[in-house]
Amino acid sequence: MQTAKAALLVDYNKPMEIREFPLPEKLEPGAMLVRIKLAGVCGTDHHIWKGELYYPGGKRRLPVILGHENVGQIERLGDGVIKDYFGNTLKEGDLLTWHGSSFTICGRCYYCSIGQPTMCVNKRGYSGGFPCDEPPYLLGGYAEYMYLFPKTDVFKLPADMSIESVVAAGCAIPTIIHGVERIGGIRFGESVVVQGSGGVGLFGLAVAKESGASSVTVIGARAERLRLAKEWGADHTIDIMNTTPEERIQKVKELTQGRGADVVIDCTGVPSAFAEGMEMPRNSGRYLIIGQFLDAGPASIRPHIVLAKQLQIHGSSGFLPRHLANGIHLLSSKKEKYPFDKLISHKFPLQKINEAIQATGKWNVIKAGVEP
Amino acid sequence: MQTAKAALLVDYNKPMEIREFPLPEKLEPGAMLVRIKLAGVCGTDHHIWKGELYYPGGKRRLPVILGHENVGQIERLGDGVIKDYFGNTLKEGDLLTWHGSSFTICGRCYYCSIGQPTMCVNKRGYSGGFPCDEPPYLLGGYAEYMYLFPKTDVFKLPADMSIESVVAAGCAIPTIIHGVERIGGIRFGESVVVQGSGGVGLFGLAVAKESGASSVTVIGARAERLRLAKEWGADHTIDIMNTTPEERIQKVKELTQGRGADVVIDCTGVPSAFAEGMEMPRNSGRYLIIGQFLDAGPASIRPHIVLAKQLQIHGSSGFLPRHLANGIHLLSSKKEKYPFDKLISHKFPLQKINEAIQATGKWNVIKAGVEP
Amino acid sequence: MQTAKAALLVDYNKPMEIREFPLPEKLEPGAMLVRIKLAGVCGTDHHIWKGELYYPGGKRRLPVILGHENVGQIERLGDGVIKDYFGNTLKEGDLLTWHGSSFTICGRCYYCSIGQPTMCVNKRGYSGGFPCDEPPYLLGGYAEYMYLFPKTDVFKLPADMSIESVVAAGCAIPTIIHGVERIGGIRFGESVVVQGSGGVGLFGLAVAKESGASSVTVIGARAERLRLAKEWGADHTIDIMNTTPEERIQKVKELTQGRGADVVIDCTGVPSAFAEGMEMPRNSGRYLIIGQFLDAGPASIRPHIVLAKQLQIHGSSGFLPRHLANGIHLLSSKKEKYPFDKLISHKFPLQKINEAIQATGKWNVIKAGVEP
Amino acid sequence: MQTAKAALLVDYNKPMEIREFPLPEKLEPGAMLVRIKLAGVCGTDHHIWKGELYYPGGKRRLPVILGHENVGQIERLGDGVIKDYFGNTLKEGDLLTWHGSSFTICGRCYYCSIGQPTMCVNKRGYSGGFPCDEPPYLLGGYAEYMYLFPKTDVFKLPADMSIESVVAAGCAIPTIIHGVERIGGIRFGESVVVQGSGGVGLFGLAVAKESGASSVTVIGARAERLRLAKEWGADHTIDIMNTTPEERIQKVKELTQGRGADVVIDCTGVPSAFAEGMEMPRNSGRYLIIGQFLDAGPASIRPHIVLAKQLQIHGSSGFLPRHLANGIHLLSSKKEKYPFDKLISHKFPLQKINEAIQATGKWNVIKAGVEP
Repeated sequence: MQTAKAALLVDYNKPMEIREFPLPEKLEPGAMLVRIKLAGVCGTDHHIWKGELYYPGGKRRLPVILGHENVGQIERLGDGVIKDYFGNTLKEGDLLTWHGSSFTICGRCYYCSIGQPTMCVNKRGYSGGFPCDEPPYLLGGYAEYMYLFPKTDVFKLPADMSIESVVAAGCAIPTIIHGVERIGGIRFGESVVVQGSGGVGLFGLAVAKESGASSVTVIGARAERLRLAKEWGADHTIDIMNTTPEERIQKVKELTQGRGADVVIDCTGVPSAFAEGMEMPRNSGRYLIIGQFLDAGPASIRPHIVLAKQLQIHGSSGFLPRHLANGIHLLSSKKEKYPFDKLISHKFPLQKINEAIQATGKWNVIKAGVEP
Repeated sequence: MQTAKAALLVDYNKPMEIREFPLPEKLEPGAMLVRIKLAGVCGTDHHIWKGELYYPGGKRRLPVILGHENVGQIERLGDGVIKDYFGNTLKEGDLLTWHGSSFTICGRCYYCSIGQPTMCVNKRGYSGGFPCDEPPYLLGGYAEYMYLFPKTDVFKLPADMSIESVVAAGCAIPTIIHGVERIGGIRFGESVVVQGSGGVGLFGLAVAKESGASSVTVIGARAERLRLAKEWGADHTIDIMNTTPEERIQKVKELTQGRGADVVIDCTGVPSAFAEGMEMPRNSGRYLIIGQFLDAGPASIRPHIVLAKQLQIHGSSGFLPRHLANGIHLLSSKKEKYPFDKLISHKFPLQKINEAIQATGKWNVIKAGVEP
Repeated sequence: MQTAKAALLVDYNKPMEIREFPLPEKLEPGAMLVRIKLAGVCGTDHHIWKGELYYPGGKRRLPVILGHENVGQIERLGDGVIKDYFGNTLKEGDLLTWHGSSFTICGRCYYCSIGQPTMCVNKRGYSGGFPCDEPPYLLGGYAEYMYLFPKTDVFKLPADMSIESVVAAGCAIPTIIHGVERIGGIRFGESVVVQGSGGVGLFGLAVAKESGASSVTVIGARAERLRLAKEWGADHTIDIMNTTPEERIQKVKELTQGRGADVVIDCTGVPSAFAEGMEMPRNSGRYLIIGQFLDAGPASIRPHIVLAKQLQIHGSSGFLPRHLANGIHLLSSKKEKYPFDKLISHKFPLQKINEAIQATGKWNVIKAGVEP
Repeated sequence: MQTAKAALLVDYNKPMEIREFPLPEKLEPGAMLVRIKLAGVCGTDHHIWKGELYYPGGKRRLPVILGHENVGQIERLGDGVIKDYFGNTLKEGDLLTWHGSSFTICGRCYYCSIGQPTMCVNKRGYSGGFPCDEPPYLLGGYAEYMYLFPKTDVFKLPADMSIESVVAAGCAIPTIIHGVERIGGIRFGESVVVQGSGGVGLFGLAVAKESGASSVTVIGARAERLRLAKEWGADHTIDIMNTTPEERIQKVKELTQGRGADVVIDCTGVPSAFAEGMEMPRNSGRYLIIGQFLDAGPASIRPHIVLAKQLQIHGSSGFLPRHLANGIHLLSSKKEKYPFDKLISHKFPLQKINEAIQATGKWNVIKAGVEP
């Protein structure tokens, strides 16, 4: 019987354990077994590992295999013609990435019924949403192989596509694409401020530029990230380490003819950034919140400003397969303009998964990848 | 030379002074002189009087005549055919109400150019926006006569219309109609929560019901106001005096199949209501802020909730003539259903304007009217 | 073995045949068997019977049982706790109506994935979408009993609700509610023109009034229907039998201060009404097309008018469970205002189903109901 | 007294006449006198010349000076500080382009009041909207000098900007930007079909690409234009000379996974293109009509398709200063990518204005410019 190694989260805040699992002998029709080529380490993986992030709607049942930003190669296919999201018929050897939870969206709950399927109450995902102590076991990316249930939305990658770029973009790019859709898109010619220079912020910059923004200002930290932002086309950057909130608000006004930006996007994860960001849009401007993924505590804000500025504040959570499809298109069509692959600054073998998680938590990497 | 008495705000927080002003001898073409029949005392008048509310874009120059919720009768007309907003040709004796600032909307500034004329940077209004120490002096409603500049958007009232109802509705009804427009309307069948049982809250209830809301819950204080809410069709009321924020949030969930409301409208003016209200919409629901008109200080909120619930939070400020037109239509077509005129609980003669302002500040009236 | 009679469409344009089918001995978990109390005859039933309407995406396989506007009483329930759309736990004897196809919406096809589930490519419905020559046979309303698959969206009706009103409203009311949602709702204070005085038109009138329209004009035929429109609150009616298209366009302008209506709704099914209706909205107005359900041929229009008037033209097809829920709420909450039950002008026993279909095709009834 | 030559349209369909007009001796405060550097010949100029296009709301009073796509250099300025749309203070010698009618938008009519100022009923424009037989005479671009009234929205051009590119983009680029705004923008990743390969079509292609469209198909004629479309980034082109409408519809489906495009933009001016284009969007797709500027007659369409596909059809007319600002930004920031200046295929001296008009009417030029 063939087996595969996987990193198991057995208990929060404890080192993951490398275990051996049997590969399934027979796949159900429509299912797939993929060999993991590269799995990204997302900040969320670190938060889950620390036990800070519960599965919406209830407690997660351990053990699980983390790793939700994956590229794999088809090893075996279940019976039937299996197609990817674009309609390509799949075969062994194809390179894939996939959406982690769309196969569980029910289409019938209240939120599905009002066209808000990211809020589906029956949604459940790989890499944390399914315990791995029963077959098919291999339901996360930090492993040599992963099992994909029938109906998983998979995306065949172009032959010349950089695996690193797909993993680097990971969940950041479809998240920002979904968010931008929720604010009615960034319109041609709009001015945009991106708060945050992490992955979501950098991809927010790219999506804003490619949506026709006439100017994008990135507010963040770490010289190398702000330099990268400049290289990727940021019209302006503001370093939070040597500016006060008031100075940043003032700077945004100066850059927007005294009015404030058409669109501000919070990609920070820091509650106080919300209070600061509310002051940055122009009157009747839009403020998109995609950075406050974890409940990192309260912020003191002025409710009056919402009225006085006639703000529109939109939260966005999760994404759908079409957002991932758009993200892949961006990665492949603009690879010269944005060398996304270079964001993978460090690679770790599966055995060193705990080092990868630690390095991510300490911000010692731009982004880490795990190579089984 | 004919004269008219008016109540002059000479200094903040000091009693207004009754002064005598000359009536204009000749009106410019398109202008009107109206005899005030009734002028409402809005909470805003009290705030201006205390000096808490500055004119957007700069300090107000005193002295001014307050009173922005007025019904008057045409005394004299300037040259030319003068029409009201609906296209009616006006004549002496017609009863009118009017929009306080639309005649100054420039149509060319940035905000006008993007279809956001309530944010016009050149906007200026009667009843505080024009000093009254130079002709035509009479530019506010707490007076025997008021001067209306050419191009003022006036609305001829039906003969059988209650003057009290128009003054009671005052600026509350067009404010709420504008706000509801900004959240894309209340759709047929939606569930609505109104925070606040003051004038804006009660009219919010009426507009929600007339927009086809399937259920409206009013959260507020004072038994007589909550009783009125019930009489006006509130499906549920919650008294804030004998409930905690947690209980109110819980109650809203119970009334909405555990999900939260489709729409929540903040009509309170209390910063902490914002923190509470954010928990009340369902996922992907809308939260309209029209109560935070004054900067009454900060509130501690959880930015994470905006993302986790995918909230849409919309501020709304001011209104346009069309919203006032809609409000007048509601008043006249639904007067049996909503006895708006009964909201004028007290009337004061012009000489007692300071008592009227004090009573309003102390919430000793439902609404006060000034009858010159 | 217990049996039930049903009217079978064996061949297009031939009389339906009454046949006897066995009732299922055992229900699958979550399924229901309901005794039909009343089934409406919709114009669509007549069109299907004539063979004019094919199932989207392919030919219908005969024989089928028609009848998609039904009220039934629960006879038996499958295993498990079965709840209705509102969350009520169901029991034998409960009165129900239901959505005909939502249980088949896949939630994963392209249209589901972009929040357009009425366009689901896997959608399939009772009353024509399932052939009835194999168990469970009873999949349409023209029968003594009907079988409801698990996950069918059913709605328990209030005890005091008129069965006739539910059947009269039938598919018209959720169709118009869905359509109005697609044009961003009818906003408080808008002027509306409804083209057509059939069921969809009359319910369009009711929904427009209940959405806060300030004026509704119904354009149609048949004195008794236009009288009904007046009784239901139409501000104006225009009889197409004694007016020309030009006169009607002119009349609409007169009723809207020379501008045209904010919203025009086509509920006619007549192609030429489209050409006429395009001239009726104001500049930047909205035109909703819900009447052109069948392809009744071409119309000659002026494309220039779309640009010159900056029209927004929206088609709407089908509806979702939430629209039916809203419709039921309207029926029950406004039954004094709109005596919807009176629209059922004729009742036929199941044996006379062919007479009912003929009478509907000849417009000899306002609406017919079939009572098994 | 200094004079300037101008080409006067004295009678429709007759050669324009070169006349000499006095330059104003003194400018009113805020006004400007500009020396024309280059004036574009738009298809609209040809239509006006033929008498096919009347000024909205009434007949044009002749004589007029045509030419509405202009770049000029400031010769003299009226008193006061004069700023451009971006806030730059202007001085003699600055290069400018300008919006032709925004200075007359009233801000108070019904359409201004509902945020639809392109429909302002008081709007009036240079280059046809003002007769030129009275001072200041010089109110169109086919002249040596042009007079700009106070409040004209002017845009100072960057020093290194190609005059030809601005004139080539002319009214096409802000028109398409306004149109795209009306359909809620082209969203990141959408598929787009552009019908028409004239100026509006080509700029439609550029705006779609810069808005993040994942694929753009241009349907048009003339090999050199389709080649240009390819050079500018069109993913596909379809030549109407060697395809039938059915083939084109089929081709669009093939290019969009069998569904149709997310967005179709009609830039043709040909009524039958509307009937064809309606078949090209996917279900629930958007169809933007900006090409049907003239009433070029009727088209036979199937109203049923609007419903069956749940189409959204949007007309768009005119544009506002902000759309011109966005267009100028595109021209200057993407000049390497799109060599817009090369569209000016022919230049004519003012004396040969009639040849320029004829050549434009006969499509013998890509675009003609007039150089006084």
